[in-house]
Amino acid sequence: MKVAVIGTGAVGGYYGGLICRSGVETHFLLHSDFDHVKEHGLVIDSKDGDFTLPEVNAYDRPEDMPECDVVLVGLKATANHVLPDILPHVIRDDGIIVLLQNGIGVEDRIHGIVPGATIIGGLCFLCSNKIGPGYIRHLDFGAVRLAQHRNDNTAAGITSKLETIAQMFEQAGISVMLAEHLVVARWQKLVWNMAYNGTCVVLAATTDQLMADVSAVALVRGIMEEVVEGARVCGYPLEEGFIDVMLEATKKMVAYSPSMKLDFEAGRPLEVEEIYRTPIAMARNAGFYMVRAEAVAMQLEFLDRRNRSSA
Amino acid sequence: MKVAVIGTGAVGGYYGGLICRSGVETHFLLHSDFDHVKEHGLVIDSKDGDFTLPEVNAYDRPEDMPECDVVLVGLKATANHVLPDILPHVIRDDGIIVLLQNGIGVEDRIHGIVPGATIIGGLCFLCSNKIGPGYIRHLDFGAVRLAQHRNDNTAAGITSKLETIAQMFEQAGISVMLAEHLVVARWQKLVWNMAYNGTCVVLAATTDQLMADVSAVALVRGIMEEVVEGARVCGYPLEEGFIDVMLEATKKMVAYSPSMKLDFEAGRPLEVEEIYRTPIAMARNAGFYMVRAEAVAMQLEFLDRRNRSSA
Repeated sequence: MKVAVIGTGAVGGYYGGLICRSGVETHFLLHSDFDHVKEHGLVIDSKDGDFTLPEVNAYDRPEDMPECDVVLVGLKATANHVLPDILPHVIRDDGIIVLLQNGIGVEDRIHGIVPGATIIGGLCFLCSNKIGPGYIRHLDFGAVRLAQHRNDNTAAGITSKLETIAQMFEQAGISVMLAEHLVVARWQKLVWNMAYNGTCVVLAATTDQLMADVSAVALVRGIMEEVVEGARVCGYPLEEGFIDVMLEATKKMVAYSPSMKLDFEAGRPLEVEEIYRTPIAMARNAGFYMVRAEAVAMQLEFLDRRNRSSA
Repeated sequence: MKVAVIGTGAVGGYYGGLICRSGVETHFLLHSDFDHVKEHGLVIDSKDGDFTLPEVNAYDRPEDMPECDVVLVGLKATANHVLPDILPHVIRDDGIIVLLQNGIGVEDRIHGIVPGATIIGGLCFLCSNKIGPGYIRHLDFGAVRLAQHRNDNTAAGITSKLETIAQMFEQAGISVMLAEHLVVARWQKLVWNMAYNGTCVVLAATTDQLMADVSAVALVRGIMEEVVEGARVCGYPLEEGFIDVMLEATKKMVAYSPSMKLDFEAGRPLEVEEIYRTPIAMARNAGFYMVRAEAVAMQLEFLDRRNRSSA
């Protein structure tokens, strides 16, 4: 089996690095870090044990890569516009694309690029950061929830391809959960992401600081209630008590900076479209207006523009 | 006529200073600045001309002050809990209390303190700051909109007492507008304050920065629409097109930091209760839920607590 990794940063570098270390033939596409990684390989500092891959298959042009059976996409969803120029070069016609990305609707936007490929969504519960060229710091967590995409957005169930990918991740030491319905899994993750990602950016706070403040908890809960209602009107009712489970779990977590906060601090574009605007529009089309989430999205758009124009 | 000024800061120091300069017998109650003002008087740097009042009637105990005909309250509304210990000492039983404060419901909370007194609300369109002991910097604007309070919150009209106060302000060079209905005037001002005060704090931005950003304008407009609807369900319909007038006026204004932003930067408590929570509760009791405004209020409460615990 050959694996290509597109986007060798905090997410792709970490998971791709683990899979490469486990003995799978792995090919990394790089951009600004190419020269450095070609010469020095990848370094992963991890709370589960540091490791170095001193020699990796590094590329700066997708045309130079072999056709792979599996492509891991570790790009931010904000960069997906580059995928039409990359994917056809690096994947077998009937290969598997694993989108290790946040948000909702991301699969819909790329399934036409390689029509014969299978798309799997990977929801990462990971706190990691790229801290230098080819240098990833893994801070906490690391599990991935995998579910297969269907173009009609119905449940794909647990397919053999999904199990193949799960096995590859597990053999690399990555904790995997499987879900039968990708869209439901994405809405579930949105309950957390829409509540915390934006609020942590706007208030410049980590999750533990929010959970220690009665007003911030009320705001987070209020946004979660909107997302649950949004999922419901879109036809994906989440289970009773889901919000309380999320709040309790977050209360017990260590101080956590969501990926959007790390992006903001690094001056990178924020995934407002994928994490906020798309689900807000989906819910609104289905008859529910997520007013709080939209207010946060507007604040994020303002902050994002200012952040990047000053950088 | 004798005038007492309670709260000789950015608002009370400015308006009280102008009234004192115009020849009215004025008595200033001070707290931390007492020794300095007793010795050096008040200094007002104003865009309309700097002036100094080298000797003023300064007090640090309300018991030492004469009974006055008019009391100007320039405290932040967050400090109104001190008024029951002050007002009875400094005002004639049938005197006039002018509350130069933001928010709504402030009069309702103090009218029992001196039952025979007349209460007038003063809505200040003022950008000023206290930059040192007895030292006020007046940056821009300065007009006051005055309306008389009635305990049943109906229109008091243009009364002779209102005109007396208006005349005193005008003779001091202060631009005055009169309103027949204090509650309507307060809701009108809330349309601006609820939209800009909190948003400028949360986004650490001046009004011109918000008005230059399409998402921030959409958020500001969305909050304004909630306030207009809140006023309507409470029985105070505002005129058609009021929001557009506010937005256009703000677009033409110089870069402006609302009072709440100045409070935040100085580590002072924010008037979330008076500017957000009270009108939100009034509207909700009347059947309308100001969801965006409440989200901003929750953000402000979090930021306010963090700001003051770190100070």
